[in-house]
Amino acid sequence: MKFKLDSRLENDSFYVCDLALSQLRLINDEQFIWLVLVPRVKGVQEIIDLSQEQQVQLWQESACLSRALREGFGPDKLNVAALGNIVAQLHMHHICRFKNDVAWPAPVWGRQAMIAYSEVAKEKLIEQFKYLLSEQGAL
Amino acid sequence: MKFKLDSRLENDSFYVCDLALSQLRLINDEQFIWLVLVPRVKGVQEIIDLSQEQQVQLWQESACLSRALREGFGPDKLNVAALGNIVAQLHMHHICRFKNDVAWPAPVWGRQAMIAYSEVAKEKLIEQFKYLLSEQGAL
Repeated sequence: MKFKLDSRLENDSFYVCDLALSQLRLINDEQFIWLVLVPRVKGVQEIIDLSQEQQVQLWQESACLSRALREGFGPDKLNVAALGNIVAQLHMHHICRFKNDVAWPAPVWGRQAMIAYSEVAKEKLIEQFKYLLSEQGAL
Repeated sequence: MKFKLDSRLENDSFYVCDLALSQLRLINDEQFIWLVLVPRVKGVQEIIDLSQEQQVQLWQESACLSRALREGFGPDKLNVAALGNIVAQLHMHHICRFKNDVAWPAPVWGRQAMIAYSEVAKEKLIEQFKYLLSEQGAL
């Protein structure tokens, strides 16, 4: 069975790169450095729906992405979460949180309208993520 | 250095049991089946602050707890999250979400006042968690 990205996730985010298991995407909201890892496995909603090997891979990718984000952006806190109440397809949020961001200390979801990136800002960030991930040995 | 539970976490939750790495606690809000895994490691705020071995153990405990919750309560969705914007000490939420719960489909945090368990209900649930975890081989 072929992996297909949920249409809402697709509309709300930009493709960054493919890791061994997951597609990495940037949520289109310039108020946050907010990425999602989407395992390229069809029909999976919970982490525990993945095979043992896939779970290990997902956590390695999550740790690698977390290190890259901390290195590149120095957040006050990382938020790492698999919720999926609205988009059930398994996706794991990784968000750099700062004490002066618009939602702090509340979670980011559904609190404020999203503000789209400019094309230039989006492309620049995507290149930065790729650089940071390559520095972590992920790309 | 000795592990010490954050006082706010302690006040908002009940001790369930100790797993190999983490203390398992039940959040004192009868509106949700809501547990947290708290690695018993001093000074840790992010998952990536744990050693490689501790991270593997945390994810195994998370998967085991997730399976136990799915088996025991049949949620429509599990929410698994390490946020820590208010309580920085590393703790990983595991919440059974239902399409008819009071917060659905929003996240649970900060949306509605918590409603404390009765002593009887709390003790019954804690026994149920221990049984479910032993069925998963975790206890």
